[in-house]
Amino acid sequence: METVKRTKVVDLLKSTAYGSIVNVKGWVRTHRSSKAVDFIALNDGSTINNIQIVVDPSKVDENQLRQITTGACISAVGTLVESQGAGQSVEIQCESIEIYGLCGSDYPMQKKGQSFEYMRQYAHLRLRTNTFGAVMRIRHNMAMAIHTYFHEHGYFYFNTPLITASDCEGAGQMFQVTTKNLYNLKKTEDGKIDYSDDFFGKQTSLTVSGQLEGELGATALGAIYTFGPTFRAENSNTPRHLAEFWMVEPEVAFLDMAGLMELEEDFIKYCIRWALDNCKDDLAFLNKMIDKGLIARLESVLNSEFVHLPYTEGIRILQEAIANGKKFEFPCEWGDDLASEHERFLVEEHFKKPVIMTNYPKAIKAFYMKIDEEESGFGGKSGQTVQGTDVLFPQIGEIIGGSVREESYDKLMGEIKDRNIPMKDMEWYLDTRKYGSCPHAGFGLGFERLILFVTGMQNIRDVIPFPRTPKNAEF
Amino acid sequence: METVKRTKVVDLLKSTAYGSIVNVKGWVRTHRSSKAVDFIALNDGSTINNIQIVVDPSKVDENQLRQITTGACISAVGTLVESQGAGQSVEIQCESIEIYGLCGSDYPMQKKGQSFEYMRQYAHLRLRTNTFGAVMRIRHNMAMAIHTYFHEHGYFYFNTPLITASDCEGAGQMFQVTTKNLYNLKKTEDGKIDYSDDFFGKQTSLTVSGQLEGELGATALGAIYTFGPTFRAENSNTPRHLAEFWMVEPEVAFLDMAGLMELEEDFIKYCIRWALDNCKDDLAFLNKMIDKGLIARLESVLNSEFVHLPYTEGIRILQEAIANGKKFEFPCEWGDDLASEHERFLVEEHFKKPVIMTNYPKAIKAFYMKIDEEESGFGGKSGQTVQGTDVLFPQIGEIIGGSVREESYDKLMGEIKDRNIPMKDMEWYLDTRKYGSCPHAGFGLGFERLILFVTGMQNIRDVIPFPRTPKNAEF
Repeated sequence: METVKRTKVVDLLKSTAYGSIVNVKGWVRTHRSSKAVDFIALNDGSTINNIQIVVDPSKVDENQLRQITTGACISAVGTLVESQGAGQSVEIQCESIEIYGLCGSDYPMQKKGQSFEYMRQYAHLRLRTNTFGAVMRIRHNMAMAIHTYFHEHGYFYFNTPLITASDCEGAGQMFQVTTKNLYNLKKTEDGKIDYSDDFFGKQTSLTVSGQLEGELGATALGAIYTFGPTFRAENSNTPRHLAEFWMVEPEVAFLDMAGLMELEEDFIKYCIRWALDNCKDDLAFLNKMIDKGLIARLESVLNSEFVHLPYTEGIRILQEAIANGKKFEFPCEWGDDLASEHERFLVEEHFKKPVIMTNYPKAIKAFYMKIDEEESGFGGKSGQTVQGTDVLFPQIGEIIGGSVREESYDKLMGEIKDRNIPMKDMEWYLDTRKYGSCPHAGFGLGFERLILFVTGMQNIRDVIPFPRTPKNAEF
Repeated sequence: METVKRTKVVDLLKSTAYGSIVNVKGWVRTHRSSKAVDFIALNDGSTINNIQIVVDPSKVDENQLRQITTGACISAVGTLVESQGAGQSVEIQCESIEIYGLCGSDYPMQKKGQSFEYMRQYAHLRLRTNTFGAVMRIRHNMAMAIHTYFHEHGYFYFNTPLITASDCEGAGQMFQVTTKNLYNLKKTEDGKIDYSDDFFGKQTSLTVSGQLEGELGATALGAIYTFGPTFRAENSNTPRHLAEFWMVEPEVAFLDMAGLMELEEDFIKYCIRWALDNCKDDLAFLNKMIDKGLIARLESVLNSEFVHLPYTEGIRILQEAIANGKKFEFPCEWGDDLASEHERFLVEEHFKKPVIMTNYPKAIKAFYMKIDEEESGFGGKSGQTVQGTDVLFPQIGEIIGGSVREESYDKLMGEIKDRNIPMKDMEWYLDTRKYGSCPHAGFGLGFERLILFVTGMQNIRDVIPFPRTPKNAEF
């Protein structure tokens, strides 16, 4: 019997080889006993569905059988048969069981229906539950969708560094990276910390974005994307913030505003379609247990044409709504950064579909965005607005932030000076505009935001295996 | 003319739509002028090959034309025609040129044949050269091969954290990650640095391996792989070491020694086959310019059955070689860690193919490796050897290190105690052996080592866009 090759549960459940001897290995989800027969529901992580193992207690060591409780790991050999009961197509008539590992009654995932907050304390074991199994399989599928999309469209995966000596984007507070002995900090004559003996010979941090280095890739290879961890040392204890999160940042030479918006919409629809096509069982589970509107919402986005909305027009719509009695907590005059309530009003109430907002006031966007010179055709104001795009989604708010990049060396330098951005050691970035400068554009997608949208989960800590947040670096 | 959609060079070179009007955008590699005609070789990063643009100087602004030098970025519209000259299939009879960005004579990549050392100073511009374009496209393809292999084999991409509070593997020196103000370091009463006000409330570092967290994923989802940046703060200034490098770490439940070796060989051959199938032009270039034995070596590995060599047998072969007059710098008695010269002798001289060395002495391997209990069938010694596997490659040496993991809680704890490994805050790892423990195995592949092997490049700093090494965190 021992020579029967193991089959994964996902494959067994699709099999019609009734009567064949099979071997299945996995973890016990439930074990029900009656006088004549035991039922063990076994899961091996390959699918959300369990396979039922039907055991005749007289055929196996009954003492051993009693020890097999929820969470135990076993290997079972038996005959694959058409299932008698409802809810599954096949089951296994068990011939023999080998116990790999028992599981005591102190197993923290013993009970069903524990809160997500409780489960976060056991992030290493919550992976064995239905919900987190589903989320992690979908997370994998979204990563695969991203790589496949870009590969098929001729982009190259470009690994920008995580340890960086520059902080010119100023996108947020940074984590310092050091090998200095903090008990004996060498200082310079003027009392500053001397980084000459630090590992890199200068002060270094963890990157907040791979975009600037990504531009170096795009202006050489034509089209690249990054996809990796990114860091923000912000003390934000919210369901939407992580200190360590994954970001996807494509950057494309010769792409203009229209092309950028097309890319953003096409890309995100590709990911959602992938989930609907490849994660049916996991989505059905989440739709039933977590968010009854999930699948309908995914399909709705897929069937929507995204609205292209210049910021100036967005402000007009919001002010009209206010005039008609709509109440917002925050103001929204031209020049203000929109609050989440404004974005959600536009997406969920006014348009009822995803919105790509464009041509924002220069002052509320980053220095590298291309300045609208004249009526841009996208509702920009000459010299006052930039070719930035935020993709706004129902429930999530901003899921993508992108822009056409300013390719003029002089204009870029003008912004850098006006904003007092420290460009020390940033000659490399300016060189892209100095040597064969080209029009280009790109965007950033917070990967966990996408997973939130696709799974219907509410807290970003529940869509990454081991979340890093203020005061929490467990596991 | 402006409405002609841009076509990438890689697609133009495959096109047979002679006579059609096309638009190409890219960077000038060379510009040769004669009285009657100009030839511009244009590259857009999509392929190593350039497209030739044939310009009648009388048809365009000649002053403008003269400014178009190596490195300049242009857009050209013209008719696609069969090429008259040798070396290319098609060329473009130019109708109009738009200059996006000129390029001064101070362009550091102006000259051909600069040394790799010189180019490393201009890592942001070297990406525009043939060699680095080829290396980066191959790097992308290897990443795609890795994701595709695991996806097709039912593994889930599992994102383990980079910031970690544990250092139990002790695989190397670590970078500290902190938001503490180094000018005002709070200390506890007994003079220790007080991390209670650090971002995570405790001392944290950058991970040296995702394996331990990966095991949590595998013992829930069945089969996972990590693929992301990893860090070692080792002061190693060698052509084989980076402080920040990418690692691939699959981890698989219910996998034994034989299955692990099969996986290692199958996986790496899949990657090499992918390169040979999908990177033909780039490999041909590297084979011609960098390493004339490259393609033959790749094919040879693909056609070899990897040798399975127990360490004990390896020592015997080495000692026999010494007895026959072979000289090594370092000793190789049973119990010694093999030096690079020993590994290369076995791979390049003795077997002349890749070797999977197995069943190493316990003392020279990590605490989590499964201890050989009896004659394992792989040449292990009871209680003295572990089920570790190193895959040794020609030129590269160790490219993969893997093992079956010790699944017995008691044996694992025994090793941890014997080795005085600090297991503070590591209960989560031990829980995998406490609750439903299962046999499992996995390996780690240094991604850049794979790229070195597949490109024939000699220095690891030349196969990652922006290398991080001691005293170097540029870009």
